[in-house]
Amino acid sequence: MGKVLLDMTMSLDGFIADRNGSVQSLYPDLSELRKTETLRESMSTTGAVVMGRHGYDMAGDYTGYEYQGPIFVVTHHVPEKVAKGENERLKFTFVTDGVKSAIEKAKAAAGDKDVTVIGGADVARQCIRAGLLDEIQIHLMPLLLGEGLRLFDDLGAEQIDLERIKVLESTTTTDIRFRVVKE
Amino acid sequence: MGKVLLDMTMSLDGFIADRNGSVQSLYPDLSELRKTETLRESMSTTGAVVMGRHGYDMAGDYTGYEYQGPIFVVTHHVPEKVAKGENERLKFTFVTDGVKSAIEKAKAAAGDKDVTVIGGADVARQCIRAGLLDEIQIHLMPLLLGEGLRLFDDLGAEQIDLERIKVLESTTTTDIRFRVVKE
Repeated sequence: MGKVLLDMTMSLDGFIADRNGSVQSLYPDLSELRKTETLRESMSTTGAVVMGRHGYDMAGDYTGYEYQGPIFVVTHHVPEKVAKGENERLKFTFVTDGVKSAIEKAKAAAGDKDVTVIGGADVARQCIRAGLLDEIQIHLMPLLLGEGLRLFDDLGAEQIDLERIKVLESTTTTDIRFRVVKE
Repeated sequence: MGKVLLDMTMSLDGFIADRNGSVQSLYPDLSELRKTETLRESMSTTGAVVMGRHGYDMAGDYTGYEYQGPIFVVTHHVPEKVAKGENERLKFTFVTDGVKSAIEKAKAAAGDKDVTVIGGADVARQCIRAGLLDEIQIHLMPLLLGEGLRLFDDLGAEQIDLERIKVLESTTTTDIRFRVVKE
C-alpha cells in the first residue's frame, strides 16, 4: 500500500500563489525544476495524482507533463468537454463527492505506489483536516510574496505533529519531506 | 560592519506562538536547542540583540541565557523597574523611537559583529517592511499549529527575493538561512 503525499511549492511566507492567483514567481525556472532529483523521485513513486478543479483549469495541456498516469480532479461540476490532453496513460477522473472519495479512488488506482496531492490550497487543507495525509513535502521557495493564497490556513485549532524525513537542497528550493505523526 | 539578521523559530504553517501566545510547542526541548550548532554559531557572531517589549516581559530572567551582551528592547514605555537580570555584560537599552532607531543603536553597539533580531512578530515585520534585514534565519519546526501568531503577515504587496545561504538539520528543526536580495 502506497502513501498519500501532499507535494507543494510554497514561499517562505506560506503562499502558493500570488495575490493575482499567479504561480509564476514560485516556479521561475520550470525547466530547472524538471531536472531536480526530488521531481524525478516523485515521478517514479507516484501512482495517482489528486488535484483541485482550479489546477485542472489552469493547466493548458497535460500532454507535455512528465507524469502520465491517473489524475483525480476534485470538483463540483464535471466539465462538459473531453478532458484536456488525455491519452492512453493519462486518464482524468472527475470526483464530485469530496476529497475523501477522491483519495480512496486514487489509492485504488495507485496500487503499491503513492498518491500525490498537488493542491490547490482547498484540497490540501481538506486532506490535512480529514487526516488523509501520510506525508507532506514542501518545496520552500526563497521568496516573501507578502500577499497571496496561503497553503496552511483555516486548519482549525488542532496541532499536528510532523517528523522530518528528508531535506534536499534543490537549485532554488529547499525540499523538506515530513511524516505526519498519527496517534 | 556586521549584518542584521532575523532569527526566528517558526512552525511549518508559519506561526511563532500558539493561539494562547505560548511558544512551548515550538521549543519542546530547550536543553537540546542550546547544544545545536546553529545556536552556538549565533552566539559567537552576535554583537547586539534587538527584541520587542513582549519578549522582554515574557522572559523570566536573563541571567541564565547564553547570550551576554547588549539587548535593545523596542517599546513605547520604558519599564520603571530596573531591567531584569542585568549585569556587567548583559545591558538593556529601551528604545522608544522605533525599530529603525533600535537597529541603528544595536549596529553601533555590535561593531564588527552581527545584530540579531529575535522578534516578536511586530518588530520582525517592521524590520522586513523597512528593508532593515540583511539575512533571515528560520528554524522550521516540524509542526502544524493550526492557529496562532503568524511571523510573515501584513507585509504588504511588495515581493522580496531571498537567496538560500545555508541549510542545517538540527535535532528537531530545519535551520535555513537566507540572504535578503537588495536591488
